[in-house]
Amino acid sequence: MKVVVAVKLKSGVLDPQGKAIGHALEGLGYDGVTDVRVGKLIELDIAETDREKARSAAESMAKRLLANTVVESFEISVP
Amino acid sequence: MKVVVAVKLKSGVLDPQGKAIGHALEGLGYDGVTDVRVGKLIELDIAETDREKARSAAESMAKRLLANTVVESFEISVP
Repeated sequence: MKVVVAVKLKSGVLDPQGKAIGHALEGLGYDGVTDVRVGKLIELDIAETDREKARSAAESMAKRLLANTVVESFEISVP
Repeated sequence: MKVVVAVKLKSGVLDPQGKAIGHALEGLGYDGVTDVRVGKLIELDIAETDREKARSAAESMAKRLLANTVVESFEISVP
């Protein structure tokens, strides 16, 4: 079963990668971009048929490894 | 207006970062993870009120800068 973990920087945490992308877009002539934030999208294939079990396994993985919960938040979706 | 661009490696393209995460999860005792793929999640704040215009601007940005369409595909969503 596919589970998607979206990891984003918490608001207030500086995002230099996003800033760099913003400047690059400006350089290419895209004027209207006021903010860019970059996160990670982690697709897991889990050998589990129960949606809730797959989701809770992914939540445990996110807390222990996939996200640094000091500066990042995560959202789990089972598409 | 917020626009989210999800950039993923095309299928068939090797993903060493995903492999490393898979091995790390195995090391932590998560046995059921058969595959891990890592992508990027780029949140753009665009000074535009029309959803379709914001989407097409993001599509243009994705093609020109945000995604390497040789090895990556992207999806745009306007939440």
